[in-house]
Amino acid sequence: MRVRKRKGAEEHLKNHPQLVVFQPEKFKGRWRELFGNDRPIHIEIGTGKGAFISGMALKNPEINYIGIDMQVSVLSYALDKVLASQAENVRLLLADGSDLRHFFAAEEVDLLYLNFSDPWPKTKHEKRRLTYKTFLGTYQHILPEKGEIHFKTDNRSLFEYSLVSFSQYGMLLNKVWLDLHASDFTGNVMTEYEEKFAEKGQVIYRVEAQFR
Amino acid sequence: MRVRKRKGAEEHLKNHPQLVVFQPEKFKGRWRELFGNDRPIHIEIGTGKGAFISGMALKNPEINYIGIDMQVSVLSYALDKVLASQAENVRLLLADGSDLRHFFAAEEVDLLYLNFSDPWPKTKHEKRRLTYKTFLGTYQHILPEKGEIHFKTDNRSLFEYSLVSFSQYGMLLNKVWLDLHASDFTGNVMTEYEEKFAEKGQVIYRVEAQFR
Repeated sequence: MRVRKRKGAEEHLKNHPQLVVFQPEKFKGRWRELFGNDRPIHIEIGTGKGAFISGMALKNPEINYIGIDMQVSVLSYALDKVLASQAENVRLLLADGSDLRHFFAAEEVDLLYLNFSDPWPKTKHEKRRLTYKTFLGTYQHILPEKGEIHFKTDNRSLFEYSLVSFSQYGMLLNKVWLDLHASDFTGNVMTEYEEKFAEKGQVIYRVEAQFR
Repeated sequence: MRVRKRKGAEEHLKNHPQLVVFQPEKFKGRWRELFGNDRPIHIEIGTGKGAFISGMALKNPEINYIGIDMQVSVLSYALDKVLASQAENVRLLLADGSDLRHFFAAEEVDLLYLNFSDPWPKTKHEKRRLTYKTFLGTYQHILPEKGEIHFKTDNRSLFEYSLVSFSQYGMLLNKVWLDLHASDFTGNVMTEYEEKFAEKGQVIYRVEAQFR
């Protein structure tokens, strides 16, 4: 997600050390300590302005959520959402998601969300897509055996690519939605992008894929 | 495909024994003899009115095609199309596709097409869907190792179901199209259904899935 640079964004984040983690590598293997409980940890790579992660946190108090984004300004908006939600089971992580093994120990994460990831449409940028095989390798490492990725997007090409990428990596597709908002899927928490697209009547794709 | 009963349909089929096979079990393991050559055999389960199979046959003279349908009237229209095309590399088979192992020896078929198969939307009819696991088992038997199914449909639910069914069966998805007619797929041969849906601007889904 690209947003304009927000004035004072970095200070805003630094003023909330109880919610924002600047040096995530320090917590590798100790995230449950940080949360102060043994509940499952679900993470969102590319958390954007935080509507999804704060909505999920409010809805599922028995889960710990970590939203990861690499952009200071974007994450500062996510912080606003988290503060407004008053949810206590969510942390924000300022980091590049390219190698999550620096931040999470093996099997430390219970579920991984990818929402409206950058499609990187050019073939030469395939390796940057968050469903490219090298990323899947890092996800597999930090997830448990049979761990799942839940991915949604409005981007047809990225979704086509990702279904094939998951399959070729050896993952199982457990469920696929080719028009999420027209389906009987209940309890969907929308991202900021998703709300915009839904208003335009655009199709949202979703998949639950599992390592094996 | 459901069509009104056509008067004289059965005689029409019987009048063309060089194209229509009534007792396919007799040719099990001997289809290449019937065609008089060693070319690859591609089959379409539920060939309908034959636009696809006759179109493919004309386009690819180096392939032998077999179109299978269980309805006499439907197959009689397919016969019209084949006769009009003057293609020599296609046969029509009046049969229920429920156990193809009666008609084809192991690995006798090189590629299998499913086009606009009946969606059987009710859960209790899942077993009748041509992408249900028991059907996949018969396809796997008659196809070679790493054999492929090429499937297209306009039916969203059936496509969602089929992607998952292929994956859960252990098949690989090699390529997925979520809007075939808006894609760069070249050389698409349309079925009768597809032409109608395309006119309405409806999305056509396609997948190439592979056994392993």
